[in-house]
Amino acid sequence: MGLERLFQAKSVAVVGASATPLKLGHTLLTNLIEGGFRGPLYPINPKEREILGLKAYPSLSAVPDPVDLVVISVPAAVVPAVVEEAVKKKAGAAIIVSGGFREAGNAEGERQLVQTARAGGLRVVGPNCQGLAYLPNRLCATWPVQRLEGPIAVVSQSGTVAAALADWATEDGLGISCMLALGNKTDVAETEAIDFLAGDGRTKVIAVYSEGLGDGRKFMEALKRATAKVPVVLLRGGRTPTGHAAAQTHTKSLAGQYEVFASLAEAAGATVVSSVEALYDAAKAYGGIARPAGRRVAIITSSGGAGVLATDAGVEAGLEPARLSDATTTALREKLPPRCSVRNPIDLTGDGTAEQYEAVIRTAAPDPGVDAFLAIFGDPIPGAAATVKKLQQEQAKPIVVVFLGGGEVEARERQAFAEARIPVFSSPERAMRGLGLVAAGRGI
Amino acid sequence: MGLERLFQAKSVAVVGASATPLKLGHTLLTNLIEGGFRGPLYPINPKEREILGLKAYPSLSAVPDPVDLVVISVPAAVVPAVVEEAVKKKAGAAIIVSGGFREAGNAEGERQLVQTARAGGLRVVGPNCQGLAYLPNRLCATWPVQRLEGPIAVVSQSGTVAAALADWATEDGLGISCMLALGNKTDVAETEAIDFLAGDGRTKVIAVYSEGLGDGRKFMEALKRATAKVPVVLLRGGRTPTGHAAAQTHTKSLAGQYEVFASLAEAAGATVVSSVEALYDAAKAYGGIARPAGRRVAIITSSGGAGVLATDAGVEAGLEPARLSDATTTALREKLPPRCSVRNPIDLTGDGTAEQYEAVIRTAAPDPGVDAFLAIFGDPIPGAAATVKKLQQEQAKPIVVVFLGGGEVEARERQAFAEARIPVFSSPERAMRGLGLVAAGRGI
Repeated sequence: MGLERLFQAKSVAVVGASATPLKLGHTLLTNLIEGGFRGPLYPINPKEREILGLKAYPSLSAVPDPVDLVVISVPAAVVPAVVEEAVKKKAGAAIIVSGGFREAGNAEGERQLVQTARAGGLRVVGPNCQGLAYLPNRLCATWPVQRLEGPIAVVSQSGTVAAALADWATEDGLGISCMLALGNKTDVAETEAIDFLAGDGRTKVIAVYSEGLGDGRKFMEALKRATAKVPVVLLRGGRTPTGHAAAQTHTKSLAGQYEVFASLAEAAGATVVSSVEALYDAAKAYGGIARPAGRRVAIITSSGGAGVLATDAGVEAGLEPARLSDATTTALREKLPPRCSVRNPIDLTGDGTAEQYEAVIRTAAPDPGVDAFLAIFGDPIPGAAATVKKLQQEQAKPIVVVFLGGGEVEARERQAFAEARIPVFSSPERAMRGLGLVAAGRGI
Repeated sequence: MGLERLFQAKSVAVVGASATPLKLGHTLLTNLIEGGFRGPLYPINPKEREILGLKAYPSLSAVPDPVDLVVISVPAAVVPAVVEEAVKKKAGAAIIVSGGFREAGNAEGERQLVQTARAGGLRVVGPNCQGLAYLPNRLCATWPVQRLEGPIAVVSQSGTVAAALADWATEDGLGISCMLALGNKTDVAETEAIDFLAGDGRTKVIAVYSEGLGDGRKFMEALKRATAKVPVVLLRGGRTPTGHAAAQTHTKSLAGQYEVFASLAEAAGATVVSSVEALYDAAKAYGGIARPAGRRVAIITSSGGAGVLATDAGVEAGLEPARLSDATTTALREKLPPRCSVRNPIDLTGDGTAEQYEAVIRTAAPDPGVDAFLAIFGDPIPGAAATVKKLQQEQAKPIVVVFLGGGEVEARERQAFAEARIPVFSSPERAMRGLGLVAAGRGI
């Protein structure tokens, strides 16, 4: 049994759906509705006849039609009976949000539950998990609600880490294809999820947070298959012995030797990072920056200092400063005021305008010495987002954007960039690290 | 001549003050007014009789009273005459915002200018700079306007980098004591600025961005003097050969060997970083986290995954997980629901409440095995800010805050933390790196 009836579920039942706002069974049903799920939704609750405008059923077996996915949010003691019912109902998958299993010392209860499910062909996400959003299917069986479909798939043992990445991707206007929080991952784990997502045709990068990976060989094989199609970024929790011990308390995973894991994963084509922000930044880069033909970057900046920092960071990220041709330099000299530097980094100074950024990129884009642009808006520059959007449509070389500063113009332009779905980096260093990853083409 | 008449100016003239909004000479005067400067302000403009409600003078010499500080925003060609006038007026310092000197190939003009100033006892900031905000004197001769006084002094060759740090410090509710953008630094440079700020009694940390440091030995000596009083964090632009070349185009500084510089600076007690965000994070930590008695951290989290990441990051930052005493563990077990883990990291799970964070910190604060707390709010937890504020007043052990997630509750709580002037870190890793610096006591 694959994961098709999980990700591509055509119908969903919510066992423990509640009419009471703020209860999890209410939130889950609300988010499925607000997420825009197009198939039938069945709230299951013996005490209600209708919840959120949907007919409620007293039990799974009372639902007259087939159910692909069963979302379970009831007390742990009741879960086994619901799983049995889901098997009888011939459901394809269950997401068990409820806690109270292995993580609470009830390993036996979890073992039995997965035994029942496996015998009945039911795939299980969780227990003790934050569920799944899969945007290509407008399926939002999680919280918070996810609406903005985009290139990044998040697969995480931790619901909080998953939600943080999804939040950041939404704020940045990039969006996600998937947010899968695995919890105790008694059945569905990283390996299969990565296999599915790498081949779904919608996911452009997979970001994984894991505290332990079960069958390491199978995982590495899946990683190789996946990175042949899309980049995979990995953050491992429990890298240090004490972190490992904390991970064991938390999810009882076995962590193994981190260094060995990291080198095998890199050899399998993954990008291995060591912080949650680096995980997001790498996913943002792979999902939001077009791959340049080479490593030579032309920097355009309104701040000389930011240009210097970008140059340093570019070198440290394995990039090279573009050497502009004499023709480009001469043309720039004609188009820009004398105060501007026309060598790379091209410094428009604090009086730089969006029109000048446009003139520079138009002039330098045909230069065969330039593979990509880094546009640093270090001052309030109205029109920045509209200009970059237009230039991205007109020519193929990637334009990576940094917007520094926290004033009104900056806030407005950041919003405009997000609406245009152009990722903005908050520092030259983060942007260059991202571009460096994409240019190196790791995992593609 | 020291820098007292610059930082502690009792009266300020703005040469090139303009009545036209959006002109720099208008912004500068506006910001001096809005920044709350308490001494007399003299707009100098031969074409106006009054600007922004203040009497305007045709020239510096027409001002009847003494002038400490002259802010100059006029075309480069006019600057030498203004400097001569400032000398005649016996002003103590000039901030030359105007560009068009060394950075534009006019090194000779700059040399003459500084000669005139030095002969006349006039200290010069700039030219080609974004000026100075010094909050203890409510002096805001820069842009954007700076109003929130706090612990961080920013000294930067780049105006954009200076403003980015000041913006971030304001957003975080920390605030700045100083934002000094040195530009071409033909006279006033890092060395003297650090000397002054380390001894002003208001600055708790100095963050420096520099692309080259003139007399290296004098700088290192100033660094030693300064770090005996307050931490100093250094970011050097032009670390790589190509970055160095970019820095030379930009400000014509000589960079020297970076590795030598970095090791000397570390030996002198400074914290050396390599990105603008690391510069800010370190300043935020030194300025916003009380120094703990030791390195043992108790982590309280609503997210097991974030607790694992924090544990890893803590070890990597030189910290240790606190071992709670049996008495503490027993007391926590009585106070918390069975689902919670009462060993470090203390995991309240996704249903954690502000009251539970309070109970944990109250219970664990007297434990001699705990030096500091890391409170991770990985879910929407109303009341988080009010609780931490209260606990910080009740007990002395530092509480470092991480707030993950981008929902409504999180936005509200972030705002409440900023209003309470408690810095919030956006990831466990950044928080632990900050706490690690403070616990190591570098530079104090």
